[in-house]
Amino acid sequence: MPDPLIIGVDLGATNIESAAVRGGDILASDKKKTRPEKGVDAVIERIAKTVRNTIDDMDASKDDFEALCIGAPGAVDIEAGVIKSAPNLGWTNVPLGDLLEEELEMPVLVDNDVNIGVLGEHVYGAGKGTLDMIGIFVGTGIGGGLVLNGTPHYGWRGVAGEVGHVVVKPNGRQCGCGRYGCVEAYASKTAMEAIIREEMEKGRSTEVFEIMEKKGKQKLTSSVIEASLEAGDLLMEEAIQNAQYYLGLLTANLVNVLDPEVVVFGGGVVERLGQDFIDPIGRTARQHYLQREGAEKIRLVPAALGDDAGPIGAGVVARRRLQSAI
Amino acid sequence: MPDPLIIGVDLGATNIESAAVRGGDILASDKKKTRPEKGVDAVIERIAKTVRNTIDDMDASKDDFEALCIGAPGAVDIEAGVIKSAPNLGWTNVPLGDLLEEELEMPVLVDNDVNIGVLGEHVYGAGKGTLDMIGIFVGTGIGGGLVLNGTPHYGWRGVAGEVGHVVVKPNGRQCGCGRYGCVEAYASKTAMEAIIREEMEKGRSTEVFEIMEKKGKQKLTSSVIEASLEAGDLLMEEAIQNAQYYLGLLTANLVNVLDPEVVVFGGGVVERLGQDFIDPIGRTARQHYLQREGAEKIRLVPAALGDDAGPIGAGVVARRRLQSAI
Repeated sequence: MPDPLIIGVDLGATNIESAAVRGGDILASDKKKTRPEKGVDAVIERIAKTVRNTIDDMDASKDDFEALCIGAPGAVDIEAGVIKSAPNLGWTNVPLGDLLEEELEMPVLVDNDVNIGVLGEHVYGAGKGTLDMIGIFVGTGIGGGLVLNGTPHYGWRGVAGEVGHVVVKPNGRQCGCGRYGCVEAYASKTAMEAIIREEMEKGRSTEVFEIMEKKGKQKLTSSVIEASLEAGDLLMEEAIQNAQYYLGLLTANLVNVLDPEVVVFGGGVVERLGQDFIDPIGRTARQHYLQREGAEKIRLVPAALGDDAGPIGAGVVARRRLQSAI
Repeated sequence: MPDPLIIGVDLGATNIESAAVRGGDILASDKKKTRPEKGVDAVIERIAKTVRNTIDDMDASKDDFEALCIGAPGAVDIEAGVIKSAPNLGWTNVPLGDLLEEELEMPVLVDNDVNIGVLGEHVYGAGKGTLDMIGIFVGTGIGGGLVLNGTPHYGWRGVAGEVGHVVVKPNGRQCGCGRYGCVEAYASKTAMEAIIREEMEKGRSTEVFEIMEKKGKQKLTSSVIEASLEAGDLLMEEAIQNAQYYLGLLTANLVNVLDPEVVVFGGGVVERLGQDFIDPIGRTARQHYLQREGAEKIRLVPAALGDDAGPIGAGVVARRRLQSAI
């Protein structure tokens, strides 16, 4: 039996990406800006338009697809298809599944975007063929997901994988979550921007904010980071090294506790900077995890699917959930 | 079919405990000092004697038992039954399984003592009925084990659960493992003793070492800790609070990553001090883990089986391994 045809959608705060997926292959795709500031209804309409474009592009009809699976940022009630809380979208208790089913008249499955990305990388990307994989995603925040003994680990309440909120420095910087010393408070783009700004306010010079302005960006994006590093900006370099150090501690802690075969790093920053971003993380991690037999074989690698991890992972999740529903 | 009759043995650096186990019940038991300084052969003989006493005590013969399962401290090659490295015993590459089979002429299974203790607590103790449980054992070192999705998580190389070597303070105190800032460097008995000694050498006063001498102990034992706390020794109190703080950070990190239903604390210190030792750990943990829905339901509890976790857990491991061998 061939893999079913699925519509996989990645709903981000900036972009909506829709794709027709079969197994690890993307057969057609479409992308739009999310524009969450226009409200829930407008976003639903934009998702639906992106999906219709994808289907049209294949000269197909929605009945050719087994289901649509959409990954959303934030806390998701998977069974009910409800986005309980998505701060980046400004959403609370949005019944995304029902709204899309009504709009598109096809079965809709909803899951967390990071869980979906991790599964995509596990089945078709950098974690292919492994039983124990940790995914760490570096972006506006720091997300993560676990595959243990070959299956995704969601935890008792379904909220496992919050690697961004591992405390790496007691009484350290305040994190967006309100607590202190989380790795996200050092290694996310938000944190790096705040750290650079604080240093600038102390009198040190940086080109980061000029570069940001030149590029027409409101915040520190991955492309601003790359351009600032290329310009040799010292504060940007320090912020990156600081992020890498704390991501190294995080990685070491996860290796000591979970003993994975591979740690996959993804997200915007990693996509831009690639293995160069990961190597220093690996050096710190190896200094901090136990050098037991086989420790040198643990792989720390960049995600392989890039933006496609969302739609391809959505296809994997849809297949799992359709199967278990039989 | 009733549970099989198993000999469960807990091999520690101080004591050997042997028991006849059926399910969660101990039917007979015997205990001897380990005396590792006398060499491997002497320890094997003492284990065999303890096992024979247990069998005699039941008016049984060794043929009444399906197998003997022994938990040993350190790195164990489970399949080969070899203790690869057990620093507390001074053992390297000791074929414990073969040696005991030869001596006792019955099937012998070997596993790590902490893994066994965690499984005992999961099946018959404080983690009974849960799917996701973390065990943290506070003693000479800090050990741990994970049960995830209802099954023990051993990891890719079989060395998962090294919670004692989670870094809780970057560039912190040096740990016995050679690295810096591990929780074991703050919260183990060894670490607490070292911290108190350092403070004393700086000129602060403490009764801990007198109490140790009065009790005829060479090092900080759980009973010395208890007596020192009862005597109101300030340095002991500070060392315990410091240990609790870092164990709280560790717990928070594990909760954020793994989302367990219950965290079980065991080991000598916890057995002595009980819930009073755990409550401050819980307060720090709750300050540091995400307050998502259901967070208040995560239980932090003392181990329920005490010294019996070893033999009872050995019975659980033996049943699992005999079953999967069929």
